[in-house]
Amino acid sequence: MRYFKSDNTAAVCPPVLAALIAANQGASLAYGADDWTARLDTVVGEFFGASVRVFTVLSGTAANSLALATLCPPWGTVLTHREAHIERDECGAPEFFTSGAKISVIEGPYAKISPTALRERLAWFEPHVHGVQPKVLSLTQATERGAVYTPAEIATLAEIAHARGMSVHMDGARFANAVVALGCQPADVTWRAGVDALSLGVIKNGGMNAEAVVFFTDGAAAPAFPTDAVSEFEFRRKRAGHLVCKGRYMAAQVLAYIESGVWRRNAEHANRLARQIGVAAGARLTAPVETNQVFVKLGSKRIAELLEAGFGFYPWAPENAGEARFVVSWDTATEDIDALCAALATN
Amino acid sequence: MRYFKSDNTAAVCPPVLAALIAANQGASLAYGADDWTARLDTVVGEFFGASVRVFTVLSGTAANSLALATLCPPWGTVLTHREAHIERDECGAPEFFTSGAKISVIEGPYAKISPTALRERLAWFEPHVHGVQPKVLSLTQATERGAVYTPAEIATLAEIAHARGMSVHMDGARFANAVVALGCQPADVTWRAGVDALSLGVIKNGGMNAEAVVFFTDGAAAPAFPTDAVSEFEFRRKRAGHLVCKGRYMAAQVLAYIESGVWRRNAEHANRLARQIGVAAGARLTAPVETNQVFVKLGSKRIAELLEAGFGFYPWAPENAGEARFVVSWDTATEDIDALCAALATN
Amino acid sequence: MRYFKSDNTAAVCPPVLAALIAANQGASLAYGADDWTARLDTVVGEFFGASVRVFTVLSGTAANSLALATLCPPWGTVLTHREAHIERDECGAPEFFTSGAKISVIEGPYAKISPTALRERLAWFEPHVHGVQPKVLSLTQATERGAVYTPAEIATLAEIAHARGMSVHMDGARFANAVVALGCQPADVTWRAGVDALSLGVIKNGGMNAEAVVFFTDGAAAPAFPTDAVSEFEFRRKRAGHLVCKGRYMAAQVLAYIESGVWRRNAEHANRLARQIGVAAGARLTAPVETNQVFVKLGSKRIAELLEAGFGFYPWAPENAGEARFVVSWDTATEDIDALCAALATN
Amino acid sequence: MRYFKSDNTAAVCPPVLAALIAANQGASLAYGADDWTARLDTVVGEFFGASVRVFTVLSGTAANSLALATLCPPWGTVLTHREAHIERDECGAPEFFTSGAKISVIEGPYAKISPTALRERLAWFEPHVHGVQPKVLSLTQATERGAVYTPAEIATLAEIAHARGMSVHMDGARFANAVVALGCQPADVTWRAGVDALSLGVIKNGGMNAEAVVFFTDGAAAPAFPTDAVSEFEFRRKRAGHLVCKGRYMAAQVLAYIESGVWRRNAEHANRLARQIGVAAGARLTAPVETNQVFVKLGSKRIAELLEAGFGFYPWAPENAGEARFVVSWDTATEDIDALCAALATN
Repeated sequence: MRYFKSDNTAAVCPPVLAALIAANQGASLAYGADDWTARLDTVVGEFFGASVRVFTVLSGTAANSLALATLCPPWGTVLTHREAHIERDECGAPEFFTSGAKISVIEGPYAKISPTALRERLAWFEPHVHGVQPKVLSLTQATERGAVYTPAEIATLAEIAHARGMSVHMDGARFANAVVALGCQPADVTWRAGVDALSLGVIKNGGMNAEAVVFFTDGAAAPAFPTDAVSEFEFRRKRAGHLVCKGRYMAAQVLAYIESGVWRRNAEHANRLARQIGVAAGARLTAPVETNQVFVKLGSKRIAELLEAGFGFYPWAPENAGEARFVVSWDTATEDIDALCAALATN
Repeated sequence: MRYFKSDNTAAVCPPVLAALIAANQGASLAYGADDWTARLDTVVGEFFGASVRVFTVLSGTAANSLALATLCPPWGTVLTHREAHIERDECGAPEFFTSGAKISVIEGPYAKISPTALRERLAWFEPHVHGVQPKVLSLTQATERGAVYTPAEIATLAEIAHARGMSVHMDGARFANAVVALGCQPADVTWRAGVDALSLGVIKNGGMNAEAVVFFTDGAAAPAFPTDAVSEFEFRRKRAGHLVCKGRYMAAQVLAYIESGVWRRNAEHANRLARQIGVAAGARLTAPVETNQVFVKLGSKRIAELLEAGFGFYPWAPENAGEARFVVSWDTATEDIDALCAALATN
Repeated sequence: MRYFKSDNTAAVCPPVLAALIAANQGASLAYGADDWTARLDTVVGEFFGASVRVFTVLSGTAANSLALATLCPPWGTVLTHREAHIERDECGAPEFFTSGAKISVIEGPYAKISPTALRERLAWFEPHVHGVQPKVLSLTQATERGAVYTPAEIATLAEIAHARGMSVHMDGARFANAVVALGCQPADVTWRAGVDALSLGVIKNGGMNAEAVVFFTDGAAAPAFPTDAVSEFEFRRKRAGHLVCKGRYMAAQVLAYIESGVWRRNAEHANRLARQIGVAAGARLTAPVETNQVFVKLGSKRIAELLEAGFGFYPWAPENAGEARFVVSWDTATEDIDALCAALATN
Repeated sequence: MRYFKSDNTAAVCPPVLAALIAANQGASLAYGADDWTARLDTVVGEFFGASVRVFTVLSGTAANSLALATLCPPWGTVLTHREAHIERDECGAPEFFTSGAKISVIEGPYAKISPTALRERLAWFEPHVHGVQPKVLSLTQATERGAVYTPAEIATLAEIAHARGMSVHMDGARFANAVVALGCQPADVTWRAGVDALSLGVIKNGGMNAEAVVFFTDGAAAPAFPTDAVSEFEFRRKRAGHLVCKGRYMAAQVLAYIESGVWRRNAEHANRLARQIGVAAGARLTAPVETNQVFVKLGSKRIAELLEAGFGFYPWAPENAGEARFVVSWDTATEDIDALCAALATN
């Protein structure tokens, strides 16, 4: 099969694998008391140019859900886009971790939230006990449709959220792809723009099974989350079975991902090849190709033919829409890209 | 103040109060082992012409949430209208009781769900672990916009739901108003049309603090809920603090409400007076007046004037829409209706 | 049947019923915006001689569980006696409301916790994420074995709890019986002794279906609960279906219970008659008769005979222990007491 | 430091690391649709000589909690030993995953449950809604005190549990150590003895971050769990963030652990060295050395001296008891054992 189903079909990239092997020397204290975990705050802090508290977890779902549970009480609501992963693809994990908080969805093209749409949605919530209270705005960077938010767009949205007393969470499952696409600094689309907590994706872009939750503890303004949020997070992580005992293998992945610079190289590779597919798709694109995902209107017949021809990809929901999603990974072969582009050209 | 805020501002109606006083004789076994509770299944069963299991709870929120928790696993989703009480007005209670199931909303005029809209929404759910699974359709009868579903409409919706393996729940906070409006039998809009579980409202239409959850255990087809649902319900109710020890005062309300026929008289009164307001509102009505709620486009200025003049009512969300809701109760005074109609006439 | 099963088999006492009838005049704002609810903080505050926030709920289980959920995070633990109602008789309601906090039990005669036992239990908890953290001490007054804590005993226990950063909750399902037995002021066994939150029982001692949760907001020291606890409580109550719409009927019960003085009269009556049973039981008593519960070692055969003779009571757990519990209510008839005493005398 | 704190301070053993490296070739379908995961049921089934369903998760806490949540409803209770990991060391994770089920503890030497103690504890639960219902018996093999249950002991306990309608769960964090100590087959202490679900530990005995939950679907009798338990498990795992996208790296660990036979070699090594420590400890042992944990009464002074001398280990709770726990890993160096034995010899 030629793999375009998702970037999570990729292998572990060499620097991360090498770090795991290197970490496998002798005994080491468990539950995060190891030397690798000890360096996390510093290394990730330098990556963002900010004071941070960093926690590893084992999946993006856990990263998002634990961050949201820390920021949102059970009677709160998380505002996000209708196509957001936390709404569509986590089987209610945020509701489970938050003990029943509600996700309130917002519409918008390319899975992006506009300031107008955010304000309109917020107008429906009233400050009384009969309704859930807006507590978190969750943005996905890059979005589930491959789009990116600019630093200015994030700042505007965060300002609206903060003015309402909400925290800002970013689902950065494809954060590196977004930063590379924008040509900006990691800080520009996070704390400098008002993001309070980030799910920093590692796995899709070359990691094995470690993601990082980053709390920005000294943003432009005071952080918009409770002062005991970090302590809460640790208890919640333990209760969720995401405090692994051999913590060095978690931290080592994150450290290698950042310190080797592979986060950037992998994302650049994937974004570049995605643009090639975009060129081949031409007018059939249903969204601009800004990162490593490509959405193409092919029709159900053509989709079936491509699947038959050995291309692995998902018809996008709802299934009868005739739309396909192609995702490029850090290790997608040029040959597979060429084959897909050729196939797209012949129709 | 002239009360049009909600039918829950009303007092307890005479037959229900008399029943409470009559029940207050000597000792009685606790936790539902009393003589009043013993008659519930029979009396409510006759009301519906069906085999039922009936449980009293202390609020409509509890009735809905406990029923939904029994019908929907944590990884399930309840499909309902965007304006449904369970979505908009219960502060996430269904999410709390279900341990984090998700409510998925459907749009439609007058807070009604159409078969087309239901089918379209269902098309988004896929049978895999990444997304929540549709498990319950919840209809409100009468709706939050005062509309009613006909027996045929319910049957069509229930058929779609059952075909997908879902249960059908009805939020009947204003069930009596709907039945009276339709001129049908209680059975026609419940089990005969495919409803599996009903939150039977008593409080708004003259009760004090008892609602009834009704499970139809021998509907047209086999009931669309797990065979141990009733046992589950009892444990869930206990854990929620809704199994009251002096159960006779709960059951007595429900029995008196049904056996005295006051459910019908009260609803007829309220519906009739609501129609008077509807006539006065004329073209400014934003929804047909089918039961005891009246929605009128008045503009923010006129709303402010009426509030100032001593009419108690809610500007409908969002607040800047200039729309007002007037609700008539079983004990709304003719004088208040006349005053409101006169006020609406003068503009 | 002669009712000694529990004080919750009793009817509603006259002052409370009269108050319900009196409250049933015309319309009234819903959800606690009524005139009765408005007086709660003042009347209950005067009862305790303290600043309080008072919330009505519909059962003792709800009162305890909502109070505990407000005071204890999911990763916390509530220390209480092994025979406490929250541990033995609420089917896990505290765990449900707290989203999975743990109850940690302590042993001790007469269902009382001693300072030594409390200190020993606390020694097992360590300040790390691997174990739950002690957050609340919950005392029952009077205990499930009919015993009372003196003001000094409570103060000692509360001091230990507060020194560990814990809050102190009191399950006062039979609070009036305890106060009457001690001959003290309500303040002496609550805020003056360090209690932070109280489940004030009304139902067992003559109410219909209203209990009160009382937060002491200016105890001897700063209150040992988060400053936003009261706000949290309101959201949690709503989500649990315990914010009833016709709030006047809840508040009216609590107001009448206190203002009429019936709380004291009813408790005095029940305690006094219980002592008569105690005299008849003599050496077979398994606990001193301090309030309105009497525990007697009768043997399985004698228990069966008394049940057969029409006395309603519970063999105490475990069933094969041959112990019986007799509870006296505000309306237990002298005749029934005489009959029981006579029966106990004849063996 | 010489590491005796826990077997989770060990590195990943060579066969498991080699398997991870070997799995890192090209793309592979995500979320368990990979070739490694496809072999799990077969390989683990052969290991147990039974039909099984196997699911990988990322920690022992998750394995236990997800298994228990599948077997126990929120109103159920899990009976286990007071020193069990699920009670003492998971910060309430089982309560979180089960939506508030209760853990009920049983006492007994060496952290083992006896049939008598189990029966006595069960006598306290009554079949009514006021109390939680016994639904699961959870045994730890080897126990938290290093002891093992024989096949006959497990069978007796399982029979009691099954007769009460309960499932039997085994926390096998140190399952290999127990099997090696008993010289039995894996089947003998699991399905053949009545175990319905097993948390099969891999991490402590040489894995990186994969544990396996095993459901025995055709035990001696019909399996004592709901027929849809396996489907439930998958949804619960997803919602908990334990369905990792790159599933091959999870399955590869479990496959290598079993197929290479390293599970046995590692456990034999650790058990053997533990016995050496036991000999050195002599009469100061507080529990027989049956597996890889050694408990020694040293006194607080001697504990402090050993810690000072560079031995890493935990004073066992409560801290003032003067007892120490030493755990041996698959990679504990002979030199460290010799040093510890020498230190223990000099009192």
